[in-house]
Amino acid sequence: MNRLLWEPIVRAALLEDLGRAGDITSDATIPADRQATAAVMARADGVIAGLDISLAAFTLFDARVVVASHRVDGDRVRKGDCIATVSGSARSLLTAERTCLNLLGHLSGIATTTRSVVDVVSPHGATVVDTRKTTPGLRALEKYAVKCGGGSNHRFGLDDAVLIKDNHVAVAGGITAAVQAARTHAGHLVKIEVEVDGLDQLDEALTLNVDVIMLDNFSLDLMREGVRRAKGRALLEASGGIRPDTAEAIAATGVDLLSLGWLTHSSPNLDVALDIVI
Amino acid sequence: MNRLLWEPIVRAALLEDLGRAGDITSDATIPADRQATAAVMARADGVIAGLDISLAAFTLFDARVVVASHRVDGDRVRKGDCIATVSGSARSLLTAERTCLNLLGHLSGIATTTRSVVDVVSPHGATVVDTRKTTPGLRALEKYAVKCGGGSNHRFGLDDAVLIKDNHVAVAGGITAAVQAARTHAGHLVKIEVEVDGLDQLDEALTLNVDVIMLDNFSLDLMREGVRRAKGRALLEASGGIRPDTAEAIAATGVDLLSLGWLTHSSPNLDVALDIVI
Amino acid sequence: MNRLLWEPIVRAALLEDLGRAGDITSDATIPADRQATAAVMARADGVIAGLDISLAAFTLFDARVVVASHRVDGDRVRKGDCIATVSGSARSLLTAERTCLNLLGHLSGIATTTRSVVDVVSPHGATVVDTRKTTPGLRALEKYAVKCGGGSNHRFGLDDAVLIKDNHVAVAGGITAAVQAARTHAGHLVKIEVEVDGLDQLDEALTLNVDVIMLDNFSLDLMREGVRRAKGRALLEASGGIRPDTAEAIAATGVDLLSLGWLTHSSPNLDVALDIVI
Amino acid sequence: MNRLLWEPIVRAALLEDLGRAGDITSDATIPADRQATAAVMARADGVIAGLDISLAAFTLFDARVVVASHRVDGDRVRKGDCIATVSGSARSLLTAERTCLNLLGHLSGIATTTRSVVDVVSPHGATVVDTRKTTPGLRALEKYAVKCGGGSNHRFGLDDAVLIKDNHVAVAGGITAAVQAARTHAGHLVKIEVEVDGLDQLDEALTLNVDVIMLDNFSLDLMREGVRRAKGRALLEASGGIRPDTAEAIAATGVDLLSLGWLTHSSPNLDVALDIVI
Amino acid sequence: MNRLLWEPIVRAALLEDLGRAGDITSDATIPADRQATAAVMARADGVIAGLDISLAAFTLFDARVVVASHRVDGDRVRKGDCIATVSGSARSLLTAERTCLNLLGHLSGIATTTRSVVDVVSPHGATVVDTRKTTPGLRALEKYAVKCGGGSNHRFGLDDAVLIKDNHVAVAGGITAAVQAARTHAGHLVKIEVEVDGLDQLDEALTLNVDVIMLDNFSLDLMREGVRRAKGRALLEASGGIRPDTAEAIAATGVDLLSLGWLTHSSPNLDVALDIVI
Amino acid sequence: MNRLLWEPIVRAALLEDLGRAGDITSDATIPADRQATAAVMARADGVIAGLDISLAAFTLFDARVVVASHRVDGDRVRKGDCIATVSGSARSLLTAERTCLNLLGHLSGIATTTRSVVDVVSPHGATVVDTRKTTPGLRALEKYAVKCGGGSNHRFGLDDAVLIKDNHVAVAGGITAAVQAARTHAGHLVKIEVEVDGLDQLDEALTLNVDVIMLDNFSLDLMREGVRRAKGRALLEASGGIRPDTAEAIAATGVDLLSLGWLTHSSPNLDVALDIVI
Repeated sequence: MNRLLWEPIVRAALLEDLGRAGDITSDATIPADRQATAAVMARADGVIAGLDISLAAFTLFDARVVVASHRVDGDRVRKGDCIATVSGSARSLLTAERTCLNLLGHLSGIATTTRSVVDVVSPHGATVVDTRKTTPGLRALEKYAVKCGGGSNHRFGLDDAVLIKDNHVAVAGGITAAVQAARTHAGHLVKIEVEVDGLDQLDEALTLNVDVIMLDNFSLDLMREGVRRAKGRALLEASGGIRPDTAEAIAATGVDLLSLGWLTHSSPNLDVALDIVI
Repeated sequence: MNRLLWEPIVRAALLEDLGRAGDITSDATIPADRQATAAVMARADGVIAGLDISLAAFTLFDARVVVASHRVDGDRVRKGDCIATVSGSARSLLTAERTCLNLLGHLSGIATTTRSVVDVVSPHGATVVDTRKTTPGLRALEKYAVKCGGGSNHRFGLDDAVLIKDNHVAVAGGITAAVQAARTHAGHLVKIEVEVDGLDQLDEALTLNVDVIMLDNFSLDLMREGVRRAKGRALLEASGGIRPDTAEAIAATGVDLLSLGWLTHSSPNLDVALDIVI
Repeated sequence: MNRLLWEPIVRAALLEDLGRAGDITSDATIPADRQATAAVMARADGVIAGLDISLAAFTLFDARVVVASHRVDGDRVRKGDCIATVSGSARSLLTAERTCLNLLGHLSGIATTTRSVVDVVSPHGATVVDTRKTTPGLRALEKYAVKCGGGSNHRFGLDDAVLIKDNHVAVAGGITAAVQAARTHAGHLVKIEVEVDGLDQLDEALTLNVDVIMLDNFSLDLMREGVRRAKGRALLEASGGIRPDTAEAIAATGVDLLSLGWLTHSSPNLDVALDIVI
Repeated sequence: MNRLLWEPIVRAALLEDLGRAGDITSDATIPADRQATAAVMARADGVIAGLDISLAAFTLFDARVVVASHRVDGDRVRKGDCIATVSGSARSLLTAERTCLNLLGHLSGIATTTRSVVDVVSPHGATVVDTRKTTPGLRALEKYAVKCGGGSNHRFGLDDAVLIKDNHVAVAGGITAAVQAARTHAGHLVKIEVEVDGLDQLDEALTLNVDVIMLDNFSLDLMREGVRRAKGRALLEASGGIRPDTAEAIAATGVDLLSLGWLTHSSPNLDVALDIVI
Repeated sequence: MNRLLWEPIVRAALLEDLGRAGDITSDATIPADRQATAAVMARADGVIAGLDISLAAFTLFDARVVVASHRVDGDRVRKGDCIATVSGSARSLLTAERTCLNLLGHLSGIATTTRSVVDVVSPHGATVVDTRKTTPGLRALEKYAVKCGGGSNHRFGLDDAVLIKDNHVAVAGGITAAVQAARTHAGHLVKIEVEVDGLDQLDEALTLNVDVIMLDNFSLDLMREGVRRAKGRALLEASGGIRPDTAEAIAATGVDLLSLGWLTHSSPNLDVALDIVI
Repeated sequence: MNRLLWEPIVRAALLEDLGRAGDITSDATIPADRQATAAVMARADGVIAGLDISLAAFTLFDARVVVASHRVDGDRVRKGDCIATVSGSARSLLTAERTCLNLLGHLSGIATTTRSVVDVVSPHGATVVDTRKTTPGLRALEKYAVKCGGGSNHRFGLDDAVLIKDNHVAVAGGITAAVQAARTHAGHLVKIEVEVDGLDQLDEALTLNVDVIMLDNFSLDLMREGVRRAKGRALLEASGGIRPDTAEAIAATGVDLLSLGWLTHSSPNLDVALDIVI
């Protein structure tokens, strides 16, 4: 990701922590000229995401802080690994610490969960994708973290692909009518996905030449039958309450894609910490 | 929370989802004049937080949407409960749906986890507090959600209280030196908390008349001894990797406060959904 | 378009005109309580785009101004037609006039040019599309104006579709390599278009199952041959210096789409004016 | 123009193009470490405006890109001239290309049209000035482009000079009343211009010692008579639907100034392109 | 002033006071449904400025608060006068109180000082004007307050008039050279003022037909001589360290204008308060 | 203060002065390549505050300007002292001059007044603190200036401490009820201050173990009696209309703190100027 896209987020996170008066503890207890070196450490196994972005908390706060990364996004780390080193004003390191770790822990948490799902799903040939169930203000970063974990991205917003859901179908008067309406309005570079709630709707969707068909809350048996009917005619995406521990069975049905809101709305943090080395 | 504090966040979340072209699916498949009513439903048991804030996604997108809340923040809900009803343009309901649910699910997830910890901890007389380990850009909202779940708030930032940690102590040359430096610099309305790593530091801190002493990663035995020594002389806060399932045993030691980063960095989403009713 | 997307633009345009001291002429010469009614008039034939958006200049400046539209976006108007009526404080009407007219004239100018191209191209079955050659800050509005004129939208940005151009092909080592790289990285809801500079590249592209092939600066003869080879296998988009007066001949070759930067970067303003009626 | 004034515009233009996911084509097809050099080329004759501003698209996107200008603002270029060279990451060059060219083509288009009018008008001793009929958000840049083309600037907004128009005159009860009201309210550093619709109003305005008199839609004959009466007593500005092809005849009447909304609202783009050189 | 110009300032002032957690005192001690009425009172004699702007603190915080003004900007008030009444949620009144009073006290303080200077200066036919020595972020509001106090406005910024000072003269090589350079570059609606440091420079300036001549730090005798030489040929502005208590003697010399940075950088607050009535 | 907190203020101040067209005087009269050196001079005795912040006006406008400070914040200066030197483009120095001086004069004015009060008050053992009566948008800077003058900071906003005032007491039903409500709602790191209007309320407050008690508009005699009763049980803060010339007598009563809105709302500017040296 380009810095133009994430710098405002890091800057806002720093300001949110600094408040109006800044770090009154470090300013009182640490001499202004004290230098230090600190290590960003993994305290659990996981996958790193957003490392450069997180470390920018230090350099945006104090341009003289020097940063050295020992990992790149997507790398697996083990508990105890040193991820990066930062050197400079001791005050600056302690003040920017929390902003860095909050970003790194959050994004790496998403990458870690994603990786764990990808690892069990990919042997079945399926792709793990995210959803729009993201944290307000952090969608682009979180979707980037999903890619760091080996996943792929679904729509970034309401505007970059058509996704016809049950309510659209109901109002439009059926899948065919809804798809035709979408095709009329959408530009030539916009893909169309339609959600189906059963095999009848699936059959109807297959006649419409859509790009992707979402199987919403299908049983495993129904999914297998859906895969049999659709294979080669459209991509099939399994969706609806999929959790890391239910993903493999779903992948085994032969669907092309599994989408999990879980990746971005319920992944726990990866535990990372800053240790003063010198 | 006053609207001035959260409206920019909801607005930004809507814009993040609308992108440049808006909801191309609903615009194509739903007639502009179609009206509808929808219910915001709980799909799991939990505690509600941020309901008015989340529902503002609808009214900020379309001022003609009418919103009716059936719960208030802090209420417990059961799976299947109707939390709120929204009526207006069908397009507007479907377009703003995800922004509303993302906010409501995230904040209610925090409140739900907090409540579950409070319920096991409060019989022991202890208070559950959050930390600064929050999601970038959402700190005030997340701390509000903690209060909805029955918790209490720690510092909102680096500037509203002094919290002397191990690194400050090390650089300042000891707990006494660090506390004295803080007292010299901090204003008369700023409280001072100091982190201690063992009983010796605790004893030293108790002589300094600080407001709160943080017991960092103490064993249960050490905590109990700390409580015995400190009771009545300063508030004791247990901290360091506390999880929902380890909280009760810690509370039983008699500490006054337990702080959990977990509440804001690792609480899973509360599952909420929008069902079109008419 | 939803108000959330355009209100900041209108607000910024008003502020740009108000400067620091506001409308010193109207404030000096018009009594504060003087009421008036004014008509937004077409002074040339054209197609209207952005009417509600433009009229919001009045209501954003003064919420008491009452606005009545007599046309909707996409309507053709003739010189002398009254497009809308505004009533309220005479000062407010005169102060917001220029902001309204600048927006309306600019967007309607684009719609008018687009309409004129669509009218000569559509009988040949071709679609007129815009490009990313838009005015900085106004892309979404200008692409909306193209739709008001009967055109369709190309990519909104670098992120909502893959468009492989000559330079990408050159660096990637050929069309096949570039398309494969794109397919590996792009999500399942992203379309892929590739630009070709001759029939050989066209043939190669046709084997790759891309969604759209751009014929860059093909002669009419080459275009016809391209259409013959590609018809039914991929959409063909003619591109490169197309002007309103060269569009029809290109459409006659049978291509599916014509993209014109001209629509958004060189359309003259539609002449619109505000006449005080009472 | 100082960078503080234009950098936010360039930054916003880049973000508008990057969207949420950035340049997915270049990121997929161009290796991250591939370096390149490209030339910004004129594809038509014209006058350059906003060169440094436009090139900043590259350096704002990627601070390591090196830029070398071969022209300065105001220079005439011929089709085929190399205007500037940029070197750095191939990805960065291709990603920022469109933002650079959109700015440069738009501003140089205005400068080119302005220059063509100035060239025919200045032999008659008249000055070409712009109006407030500018593109929303770009007024300062467009007025700068007018200066690059040899023109001069009219008001920048409603607040930096008094311009009494027909509606102000009508409400205020005549030219004399309007000018007196303006003189009472305006500060001592604010000039006063008044629009007149015929010779009677011109005569009245000449008695009022205003700084500039605008002849609104005067015929050439009336303009000549106006010049005869006013010369030396006030500056005369011809205004109202002046086009590049009608400007010379108007200048020949002897008026001091010609104002053309056309310069900023209807100038076609100057065709510029980026060619990868290495 | 139009709301578009000042609402962002009031909103920012409220947010500055609310911080992240809002008014924790009122939220804890005042029931949410408690209603109240309060009076904005003058605690000293003075002149009101910015009343509507200040009262908007209440309605921006809580749209249900009802505001009634008993004075208008520019009115003189006596100690004990009730300036306005506000009714609504007691919490809202207490929370927005300080933001309202800070704005009202600051702007009315400027108006009060200005009025006191105008009262002693205007009998001599002189006008009191402000300078660019304003508080960062508040220039437009402070210049508005000067007008409320009976003063007039100097430049609003570096861009709306030419003011040639000693350093410009020195670099340009004399007053004549500087004025000629300015006349060449400035548009036809820009006035030119030049600062002179003695009678020789004054004589030179008088030959150049500038709009205003600033007498910088002239003695009263020199000023009188300057007035004798210049009267009728250019406006004379006295400037340089003028204080409220030195203004009358300067006005008595016959100069047209006195500019005082004092008005905006050193006026004390007007004491205003909020009294809960019911 | 960290740059993240003040750079947006300096940037906004520059833009407020530059307007849309920038410094038209310097651009016209000073050659673009003319270099100069200038000195920031004290024209009165005082205490410096915000020096680095103010000087950033030059470097934010033109990154090539070189700045050398000869004083640090908190230093006393005498009339005629050179505070800093700036070198670079003569245009840049003259354009950014006013923004720099406005900030420096305002903040140093506050520091100077604060210092004068501290000097008479501190021999009595009392501390001088500010209030929330600050200039909208500048609270953090002004509170920083108070510290530069030797004062200490009261609350930064409504959210970082509880301050129960007369109106809260009245609504809550007495001091005891109000303090208990506050204690229930406030977090464990929030201090509680309560305002009392007489000795009875003081006695009540002393039983409640609050952190600070504010004596509002007490006579000197009452204050002395209050000090006698409270000494050692709570900090006592004198408040209410204290002026620099009444501070010493109040301090002599033995109160711990004196809070003066005067420091931030009525301190006159410190006179500073920029002299071109070369």
